[in-house]
Amino acid sequence: MDDLPDLVRPFAFLLGTWRGEGVGGYPTLEADFRYGEEITFACYGKPVIAFTSESWAVDDERPLARQSGFWRPTSATDLEVVLSVAAGLVEVFYGRLVSGPAGDHVELESDLIGHTATAKRVEADKRLYAVRGGKLMYAMEMAAVGQPMRPHLSAALDRVS
Amino acid sequence: MDDLPDLVRPFAFLLGTWRGEGVGGYPTLEADFRYGEEITFACYGKPVIAFTSESWAVDDERPLARQSGFWRPTSATDLEVVLSVAAGLVEVFYGRLVSGPAGDHVELESDLIGHTATAKRVEADKRLYAVRGGKLMYAMEMAAVGQPMRPHLSAALDRVS
Repeated sequence: MDDLPDLVRPFAFLLGTWRGEGVGGYPTLEADFRYGEEITFACYGKPVIAFTSESWAVDDERPLARQSGFWRPTSATDLEVVLSVAAGLVEVFYGRLVSGPAGDHVELESDLIGHTATAKRVEADKRLYAVRGGKLMYAMEMAAVGQPMRPHLSAALDRVS
Repeated sequence: MDDLPDLVRPFAFLLGTWRGEGVGGYPTLEADFRYGEEITFACYGKPVIAFTSESWAVDDERPLARQSGFWRPTSATDLEVVLSVAAGLVEVFYGRLVSGPAGDHVELESDLIGHTATAKRVEADKRLYAVRGGKLMYAMEMAAVGQPMRPHLSAALDRVS
């Protein structure tokens, strides 16, 4: 903790590697689905947190989604995030650290989403990350493929390192 | 190689982890600078290549730049790339595999660049990646902070795995 850049400290509760299961769904999908996921938040010495996520199918462990990017705190409560998504998206988010009676959480909201020619359209992406009871919890909702903002993914992951 | 998705095979010469030194410069910088860098291109089972780069100062090994993203081949010669840069950028590139008498190389050109509020402006980013004499060579030029397209970074990295 003492070695962390000052800007990273308020977000230090997220640092580590987290692994577990999540549930996904969307109005355009016939049924909800379960997935395995590993997320890492790591500080490498600059006032930036490197973020990676990979997910897999719970039945046969085939690879599903990957994302990676960088969280850039700009104050004790504010941050910018740049993210690339293997499905062909890039995203810029702004967010903030919110303190509540149950602990801190981070809220992110997309400001810009860019697509490759072959990617499905995502118009907006909102996320909440928290640690509760020792688990990394997150929820992600999106407006995509013509749908209004709706829940898409949520997971509770155990710390593995 | 047999396990690689068909779309990834033409780009398989890039796969692996590469480490070495590069040289950077730009019209707005007083002097050129040397940097250490490690780049990984990895296929994780989908027809996508995960890309990561981290660099450090050669004098004291302090961390410099980080980037990560995904190369998405769309044919035997064409690809899309999504990239996030720790300095606060996201980029979408289109590119192609070019075969010449000295071997293959990949050319990428930015189509979209998004910035966080605090990032320096980069207007365009062109890259060439090749493997020559067992080394990963790349050159990157950019139009940024009001300058026209000019060389910025180049490196020759040895395969470490």
